[in-house]
Amino acid sequence: MVKSVNVAIIGSGVVGSAFVSQLKNLKSPINFNVVYFARSSKEALFSSDYSPVDLSTYKSATTVQPVLALDKLVQFLAAAQKPTILIDNTSNQSIADFYPTFIKSGISIATPNKKAFSSELSVWNEIFQASAAPGGGLVYHEATVGAGLPIIGPLRDLVVTGDKVEKIEGIFSGTLSYIFNEFSTTDAASTTKFSDVVTVAKNLGYTEPDPRDDLNGLDVARKVTILARISGFEVESPTSFEVESLIPKALESVEKADDFLAQLPNYDADIQKIKDEALKEGKVLRFVGSVDFKANKVSVGIGKYAFDHPFASLKGSDNVVSIKTDRYPNPLIIQGAGAGAEVTAHGVLADAIKIAERVAV
Amino acid sequence: MVKSVNVAIIGSGVVGSAFVSQLKNLKSPINFNVVYFARSSKEALFSSDYSPVDLSTYKSATTVQPVLALDKLVQFLAAAQKPTILIDNTSNQSIADFYPTFIKSGISIATPNKKAFSSELSVWNEIFQASAAPGGGLVYHEATVGAGLPIIGPLRDLVVTGDKVEKIEGIFSGTLSYIFNEFSTTDAASTTKFSDVVTVAKNLGYTEPDPRDDLNGLDVARKVTILARISGFEVESPTSFEVESLIPKALESVEKADDFLAQLPNYDADIQKIKDEALKEGKVLRFVGSVDFKANKVSVGIGKYAFDHPFASLKGSDNVVSIKTDRYPNPLIIQGAGAGAEVTAHGVLADAIKIAERVAV
Ligand SMILES: NC(=O)c1ccc[n+]([C@@H]2O[C@H](COP(=O)([O-])OP(=O)(O)OC[C@H]3O[C@@H](n4cnc5c(N)ncnc54)[C@H](OP(=O)(O)O)[C@@H]3O)[C@@H](O)[C@H]2O)c1
Ligand SMILES: NC(=O)c1ccc[n+]([C@@H]2O[C@H](COP(=O)([O-])OP(=O)(O)OC[C@H]3O[C@@H](n4cnc5c(N)ncnc54)[C@H](OP(=O)(O)O)[C@@H]3O)[C@@H](O)[C@H]2O)c1
Repeated sequence: MVKSVNVAIIGSGVVGSAFVSQLKNLKSPINFNVVYFARSSKEALFSSDYSPVDLSTYKSATTVQPVLALDKLVQFLAAAQKPTILIDNTSNQSIADFYPTFIKSGISIATPNKKAFSSELSVWNEIFQASAAPGGGLVYHEATVGAGLPIIGPLRDLVVTGDKVEKIEGIFSGTLSYIFNEFSTTDAASTTKFSDVVTVAKNLGYTEPDPRDDLNGLDVARKVTILARISGFEVESPTSFEVESLIPKALESVEKADDFLAQLPNYDADIQKIKDEALKEGKVLRFVGSVDFKANKVSVGIGKYAFDHPFASLKGSDNVVSIKTDRYPNPLIIQGAGAGAEVTAHGVLADAIKIAERVAV
Repeated sequence: MVKSVNVAIIGSGVVGSAFVSQLKNLKSPINFNVVYFARSSKEALFSSDYSPVDLSTYKSATTVQPVLALDKLVQFLAAAQKPTILIDNTSNQSIADFYPTFIKSGISIATPNKKAFSSELSVWNEIFQASAAPGGGLVYHEATVGAGLPIIGPLRDLVVTGDKVEKIEGIFSGTLSYIFNEFSTTDAASTTKFSDVVTVAKNLGYTEPDPRDDLNGLDVARKVTILARISGFEVESPTSFEVESLIPKALESVEKADDFLAQLPNYDADIQKIKDEALKEGKVLRFVGSVDFKANKVSVGIGKYAFDHPFASLKGSDNVVSIKTDRYPNPLIIQGAGAGAEVTAHGVLADAIKIAERVAV
């Protein structure tokens, strides 16, 4: 008898469409039966008898229905009386808010959506308590930090087997990785200006439409919140600790992104000074998030790293994390692309497979 | 109802005793019921009614019995009619040869023992075919490469979700990592001799009793064989490809390790020449294993790496692996301690937990 699970997919944007294409080509002893697929925030493909959605024609399918309200979606999925995995490929807060309800109904979740795991601590606790309770769904979210890089799974493995985290440091934003790798190099003669790099990054499509959504450090703060909590540091929320914003105070209220970029060169001297000072010490600047148990501190901001430190030789828009523990006094380091459709999708799909291996019948 | 699995542990050496201590302290929703524990190659603790072995007193326990022959052990475990995990914390070939029998009897395996996975390809195929067959036990062996570093799991995740490996390169021996990190640095003025570093490594207890068991490259070849096979490169055996031995030909037949070390300085000039040439190109030497799909080649030997390459800045006896794939053209890099009791044991225990999450009832 072939084992199977039901799958509900929400979202077919950058990650969602890559996910569907990987799932379509998956060779697995377990049958993934896609019973619901919201291909946008408006339209979904599903049928009342749970017959599988055809993943090869979903884009052009005309037999679409309005998406189900979330409470109706839970009912629909639970009524199938089959192990079910929800794949949330959105960044939607309302869907995240509904995770506890899905989990309590026995529905498991695999997602790259950070929202649920990086808001108030109470939400985190509710999610994992519901998951641990009898009949609760499983929750895997590897792709919420570093996309497909193996970070969350290995960190959980360390903690659950009794290791003690001393310090986690990392570069968790592909955009800010790129900006600092370009801006601050070991080359003393470099005349690269911060504002120029930001503009190039925007033109290459590396930043959010408004680069301030990267420069404010909040996305990094969310990722650090997740890693801190897994390590046992009970962070209240991503705004409950020190986050250094790279947006000059005076430019926070500038309305348009273009105006912001036009005025940014006026502030180049400030960050240039920090860079020059670091260079004198034989160091480069990087924008890092850190969880420091010794200092009892979680923080996000500019850090200085010696030329031979792994963070200094980072390339392109790679992410990197350094995990120092009792067992790894010389830290465990994981490095590679931390964003992108394919790597994020495979992080989510690998999670879905792990869930299926545990729940499929 | 609390879920549980039966566990049989073989070996309480360096890794085995750390494993037992981590298991003893494990807080898990699943109950790990140790029904058999071979505390040495002679003595085992178990009782015919499968009542749990007391892990806090196993060292001094006097109610020991001779270890069961492997066919009897399979019978004993299978007769319990419970999901069972075999933990093989030995480097024993006979136990490895018995894996297919365990797996066919539905017994799962978690192990740091490389033997079964790095001998003939037919053994590898038999193991994973038996595991995939209905009723077959599961097989996890993260700690066979890089100890507790997350390498095998993440590599399998990439491959199963459809990524294509282009090249894997790594430093897989803690001993040879230490030796080359000390011998070949970016410091042009260094006068360190190869034979001196080997002697220091031996005195620090970093090498096998006879350092030639490290210098022959065979342990690295075994690890590369495992990674190659996971990536889809069907390596026939660890001796079926090019392995560069660091033992001068004339010293292979020298009987005693001490005599070998005494004569090694006579050959320093040869490797010094390679190091000097590399230094002129701005490179250091490292002892690497590699799987190269483009060149259709698996090999083990000395490689040259630019000063800003991650392999060049490796510290102590750390391992590192670089995995280049379609999705990670800029490679995924994982680095950290690749040997040691605690990190190896946690690799095995994390595997045992993953198995238990799938099979416990
Ligand atoms: N892209 C990356 O490299 C990356 C890396 C790591 C993590 N992530 C995370 O992955 C998630 C998806 O990112 P993305 O880049 O794929 O975003 P995206 O391209 O904006 O796609 C989001 C998709 O979700 C849909 N959606 C939003 N709300 C919905 C709702 N209520 N019901 C149904 N569908 C809804 C959107 O449909 P409409 O177009 O109709 O609104 C769209 O198809 C985010 O949480 C992101 O943080 C992304
Ligand atoms: N140590 C590391 O850092 C490390 C790292 C990665 C992987 N590993 C792997 O982990 C495994 C264990 O390594 P280790 O360093 O712990 O070795 P070890 O200290 O030599 O321990 C081996 C243990 O296995 C027992 N044993 C051998 N054959 C047996 C048999 N037939 N029945 C029952 N017990 C038997 C030995 O008992 P006796 O003393 O009675 O012979 C001993 O207790 C090896 O496969 C090794 O390659 C080790």
